[in-house]
Order: sequence, then C-alpha cells, then structure tokens
Amino acid sequence: MAEFQTAVSQDGLSHVAQLELGSNPNELALRRPFDPVVHDLDATFRLCRFADLKGRGCKVPQEVLAKLLECLQQDETAQDHEHAHFMHMAIPRIGKQIGIGMDSAVIPLRHGGLSLVQTTDFFYPLVDDPYMMGKIACSNVLSDLYAMGVTECDNLLMLVAVSTKMTEKERDVVIPLMLRGFKDSALEAGTAVTGGQTVVNPWCTIGGVATTVCQPNEYIVPDNAVVGDVLVLTKPLGTQVAVNAHQWLDQPERWNRIKLIVSEDDVRKAYQRSMDSMARLNRIAARLMHKYNAHGATDVTGFGLLGHAQTLAKHQKNEVSFVIHNLPVIAKMAAVAKACGNMFQLLQGHSAETSGGLLICLPREQAAAYCKDIEKQEGYQAWIIGIVEKGNRTARIIDKPRVIEVPAKEKDGELW
Amino acid sequence: MAEFQTAVSQDGLSHVAQLELGSNPNELALRRPFDPVVHDLDATFRLCRFADLKGRGCKVPQEVLAKLLECLQQDETAQDHEHAHFMHMAIPRIGKQIGIGMDSAVIPLRHGGLSLVQTTDFFYPLVDDPYMMGKIACSNVLSDLYAMGVTECDNLLMLVAVSTKMTEKERDVVIPLMLRGFKDSALEAGTAVTGGQTVVNPWCTIGGVATTVCQPNEYIVPDNAVVGDVLVLTKPLGTQVAVNAHQWLDQPERWNRIKLIVSEDDVRKAYQRSMDSMARLNRIAARLMHKYNAHGATDVTGFGLLGHAQTLAKHQKNEVSFVIHNLPVIAKMAAVAKACGNMFQLLQGHSAETSGGLLICLPREQAAAYCKDIEKQEGYQAWIIGIVEKGNRTARIIDKPRVIEVPAKEKDGELW
Repeated sequence: MAEFQTAVSQDGLSHVAQLELGSNPNELALRRPFDPVVHDLDATFRLCRFADLKGRGCKVPQEVLAKLLECLQQDETAQDHEHAHFMHMAIPRIGKQIGIGMDSAVIPLRHGGLSLVQTTDFFYPLVDDPYMMGKIACSNVLSDLYAMGVTECDNLLMLVAVSTKMTEKERDVVIPLMLRGFKDSALEAGTAVTGGQTVVNPWCTIGGVATTVCQPNEYIVPDNAVVGDVLVLTKPLGTQVAVNAHQWLDQPERWNRIKLIVSEDDVRKAYQRSMDSMARLNRIAARLMHKYNAHGATDVTGFGLLGHAQTLAKHQKNEVSFVIHNLPVIAKMAAVAKACGNMFQLLQGHSAETSGGLLICLPREQAAAYCKDIEKQEGYQAWIIGIVEKGNRTARIIDKPRVIEVPAKEKDGELW
Repeated sequence: MAEFQTAVSQDGLSHVAQLELGSNPNELALRRPFDPVVHDLDATFRLCRFADLKGRGCKVPQEVLAKLLECLQQDETAQDHEHAHFMHMAIPRIGKQIGIGMDSAVIPLRHGGLSLVQTTDFFYPLVDDPYMMGKIACSNVLSDLYAMGVTECDNLLMLVAVSTKMTEKERDVVIPLMLRGFKDSALEAGTAVTGGQTVVNPWCTIGGVATTVCQPNEYIVPDNAVVGDVLVLTKPLGTQVAVNAHQWLDQPERWNRIKLIVSEDDVRKAYQRSMDSMARLNRIAARLMHKYNAHGATDVTGFGLLGHAQTLAKHQKNEVSFVIHNLPVIAKMAAVAKACGNMFQLLQGHSAETSGGLLICLPREQAAAYCKDIEKQEGYQAWIIGIVEKGNRTARIIDKPRVIEVPAKEKDGELW
C-alpha cells in the first residue's frame, strides 16, 4: 500500500494553481536563511551531515551502471539501429549504451494518441537549509519534464528517507520543513504532491516522481539540432563548487586553501545564489522553447555541462556537433574551482550541477529573443554559450572558454 | 536527468507482453534457490545483512508520519468533509488523517475523461535470494494498482540503491540478479521497466513506480462495501514470521527459542512458500474483481491484515464494519508466532506482510465462485475470511479466529 495519498479534486487542483505563494503567513519566516538555533536545534546542526555523499554525488558511476543495467536490455534483433520507431517519429533510443537517453521516459498510451512522460530522481542533502533542500529536490525532479518542453505536471509523488541518525527533535523540525519546501515548489509549478513514500534510512534522502499525460505537440523530442543553431544555457554553472566552498567555512584546513582567492562574504553570496538558482523552476524556460522553436534540450545536472551536452549531441538525427565558447559561472566560483586543481573540473565542463539550467538548441535568429524573453519574465539572464556545427555528434568546450562571472542575485525586498 | 531510460516502441511493448518467461535460457539457473558459492561469493553472504531493517519494516511509524506530513495538507475549508467530490464520485479522502487512503493516487487528467492511477513503493531486502527479492519488490509495487482493480500497468520505473557495504564483486553479482527479477515480474505483468534511478546508499534498496492511464471503468473505488458482503483474502498470512524464522536458522540463540515448535525443514518450506507467495502477482485477483463485482479491495502489506482492513473499513460510504473469522497462515507459522510472544502479533492481525494478498469485499453469492475461479486459473487457494456487518466503519478479528494451515506449495516440475 502506498503509504500516503492525498486526494485532489479537479477543483482542488485548479485552486492550487491559483494560490499565491506569498499568501502563506509562514512564508517570510521560511525564507530567512535557516538557523538551527531558531528551531531549538544545536547551532552545529548541519543537514548535509546526514549523508556521506551530496546531491547528485549519490550516483553510481556511469560505467558501473552500464554493466549493472545490462540485464534490462530488451532482447531485440534490431539492437543495432540507433533509432527506434516511435509513434511515427525517430527518437533517440538506448540500444547498446543504457544510461543515456532522454530526460524523461515517453510511453505511448492505449488511449487517444496520448503519451505518458515520466521521470524520477532523488537526492542527498547538499544544502543545510531543509526548506530550500525540499524546493531544490522538487525543482530538479520537475526539470526532467521541462527539458522535454513539457510545462504541465499532472502528478507528483514524493520519496523521503528520514535519517536513522537524526534525533527525534531534529527529525520533527527538519523533515516538515523539507516537505514544505517540496510542496511549495510543486504549487509554484501548478501541480501538487498526491502521494509518496517515507522510509527510515541511514542517509537522509528526498526526491520524487513527476508524471504528465500529454499530446505529441506538448513535448519536444530532443534530436532535431541543425547546423547553424546556437546553444543557450538558462542558469549559471558552479553550484557544486559553491556548496562545497560554503561547507569549508566550517573546516579551517580546507578553507585555508581557498581563502586567498575568495572572501567569506563571496562564498556566502555564491551559496545563496546557488540555492536560489537550484530552487528555480525551469518551467518558463520550457514554455519559451515552444515559442522560439527549440530543436531540443536537456537539463544540466550530475554529469556536468559537457556530459549532458555530449549526451544530447550523440542522439541527434543530423550530423552535427556542439562547440561551447562561453561558461557563465556563479561569481568567483571559477577562481575557486581553479584553485582546487582537478577536484571539480568546472572549466572542463565536468563539475556536477544540481537542478541546473536547460541547455537548448535554438535557431540562431531566435536565440537572442529567447534570452530577452526569459529575462523579462523571470528577471534572470540566459546566455548563448555555443554553436551547432557540422560534425559527428559530439560536444566540446573550446580551449580557452570565456568565463562570464554571474553575480549573486540581489532582488528588491528579498532577504538574500 | 533521469539516469536511464529504455525507449519502448509500441511494437516493443506488445512483443514484451507476449514473451514467454520460460524462453530465457538462464531461467532454470535463476530459479534454483540462491547459493552464494555458485556465484563465487562467500558462503556466508546474506543479502538481508545489507539493511538493518527488513522489507516493509523500513516504514516510519504511522503516528510519526501523520505529524511529519501535516504540512502537505491542502488548506481547504471543507476539511471536515469525509469525502471529496471527485469526478462525480465520492472517494475516500485523506482529510485529517494523512497516511491513510487508497492504495494508489487517482488523478483526473486534462484529456478525454481519463485518470492517472499511480503508486510508488520501495523495500529493504527481506530474503537472501537477490532474484526473488527483485520479483517481490516488483510484485509489491504493482499490487497497489491491482488493489484498485487496475490490471494494466502502462509504465514501470525502478528505484535501486546499491549498498556502500557491498564489495564490487557482491555488487556485480547481486544487483543484476535483483534487476532481472524485477524485470521478469514486469514482463509477467505485461509491462516493462522504461527507466529509473540507481544510487549508492548504506542500505540496499529496491522499489519502483507503477503508472496507468485509464478510463473510469478500469478501476474500482474501494468504498462500496454493503452489509452482507463477505471478505476474501487471496494469499496466506505469515510472510514476516517465515522470513524471520528462516534467518534464525543462522542464529542458534534465536533458533533455540522455536526449535521445539518447528523443524528446520518446516521453516525452509515456509520460507520458500513465502517467497513464492510474495513474488506472485495480484493481477488475476484484480481481473476477477471486475468479473465478480467486487465492492472494493486493498492489498495486505506493512500494517498487517487488521491494519489494512481497518483502513478499508474507515473509508466506506455505507455504515458497515468488517469482522474477520478465519486466518489462513503459512503452515506452522501461527505456532512460531505464538511461541514468540508479542513479537509478531500475527493472530491479532498486526504482523506486517510484504506483497500480501488482496483483501476484497465481494457480494456473498459471488465469493465462492471468485475463489474457485482464481484457484482454477492460478492453482492457488483464496479464502473467505470474514463478513461485512452493519457498523461504524471499523474492522476486528473475532476472539478465537480459526487458523487455516496453508501448506508449502509443491508444484510439479518446480524446483521448490
């Protein structure tokens, strides 16, 4: 039995979509940076300590995964075909290399030409603010739908693991905040959490399942890039660097290694900017993909910018390659990454992001308008970071990419 | 990005449904009781050791859960209504006591009067055979759909956590077997695993998400029991007792406490019967609910027979109560439970089951035919275990229920 289900009436759902986030009287308190002492927890409480791995760091390495998943391969004689026939469209198929593909599963349904678009993801804490962690998890789960151009989520399930190492007090403070963050982001996305599972586990975990049933024109199969397209990125890079640098404020030995590069204030600002960015939905980015005729997209998460660019390139119908010239990075984080040697490989495109932006192939003549539109609607910049050339379905970053420093967001009336 | 997606064409899916399970050349080897030595693992390897909790034992206690989930409550003024209006039907709603409800979320869709029926569940190992553990997890995930009378699953996602405590060798042997078990049960159910997530975690975990898009006549809202109905149970109780007793074979101190009650052979047979039962799909049970006009059902899992009976009773439209007279129990397990004092509370209806049977409210005149039909189709008994009386939406077991000893299944040509 699924352990909790909240029944949502049709009326209830539209009601939910209309809710103003600001209407919650607790909203202001929740938006303040999390202070454990305010919640009667020890000042040293750190959510990130309830897992030994962080965020997307929980992934099984790609090559190990491929081996473990071999048995899931369908025993098909046509396994050499790079594309499967799918609802009269050629879509990227997994074939030999499982672990790669589209951001969401697309399943043809038995009813009326509809498809099920579905994804699941879960995360270990990578920020110490439980409310923000909930928002980030929800945004990242939904992001897989948005990467397919799907803007409506019909259902969200939530997956939560309460750490066995939490005291009862910690559990009772932290878990409800995390759930509320998840729920608030769901509301913001015009959907609702209708059920899920909560288990006990050594490491704290939060994630979910996002599902949509839609018509073919509601999603964009990400395989249509053409020579002359440009690549747009909708969020800055560097979230992994920022959350790590922020943790090092507590660890003098680590902090000493970067303190000549950045100030404590720089790190705190970068951390806030990261949380803000990771919690932001890619929904408007997805909606504008339709308006500006995007040829395909992916969201940038655990495999880093280049990893996801390569996956996207590999599955194109046309003989194209992606070349990345510009790297928008949260201010100072490029310098921190450089000072850490091979640890992050941010400028090489390998640094993991959590709930990163969409990387979108757009017709050249539409890209500037896309960026202008998203900034107008959301107040956040997007960047043209590369071009689509003739090639063999690979992606690369040029030798000396231009790093664009993206300052911490200072919104009027916001608390950070 | 969802980490793996297997694209399934429409043709692929029907192909999958037609696959004979026996066509796999590895089938025979896989069906042999798992022997770690055959796989080059140490003879003392036990899958269950990779989690400190077992199967459904991973659940957060119901009263704690209710508190933690409070924040998910919709702020509705109509919160006192016991039923929400839902697609012109009154359905059980969560209202004040979250943690209770239907086995799957039912969400009205934007398209053609269709509904999304969806559930998620995950488990820690409770048997030492990785292949069987995969099958059990899949059967239990699907069971939430079956409890709603839904017989077709349109999509399965799989959630796997590889234990950080496994050696590489253990991981490479155990995880593929577990995934294959999950996949084989999916095939048996006429569906396929199209994606999922694999993470690293201290405790080994396997679970999934089952989704169907269907018309209103494809699911049965479980709130229509009437006075005079009878309760049918489609699998025997006692799986928790059996898997624990089996583990005690390795633990002389524990074993000594029950060795006068049961022989080692009894325990091994009960364990095999449990695995067989937990791995069995409730799909035919669900199909027959339509044929024999079931008034509602639930599946018996973590809260035990009485827990689930009470939940089902609580959400009935009519003023009814459930009274349970008979307890079909895997042979000898009632005696073992009794010898263990308050540990299991099997005869009180509280012993957790994993992937248990459906508990179904059927019109009295149809129930015998239901049981006969399921036995004819599957070779497994079902039992009339209780009656529906006039009452205040509660469930109870009579003072001295009749225990029906259910022997280990001995199928011709099977290896157990």
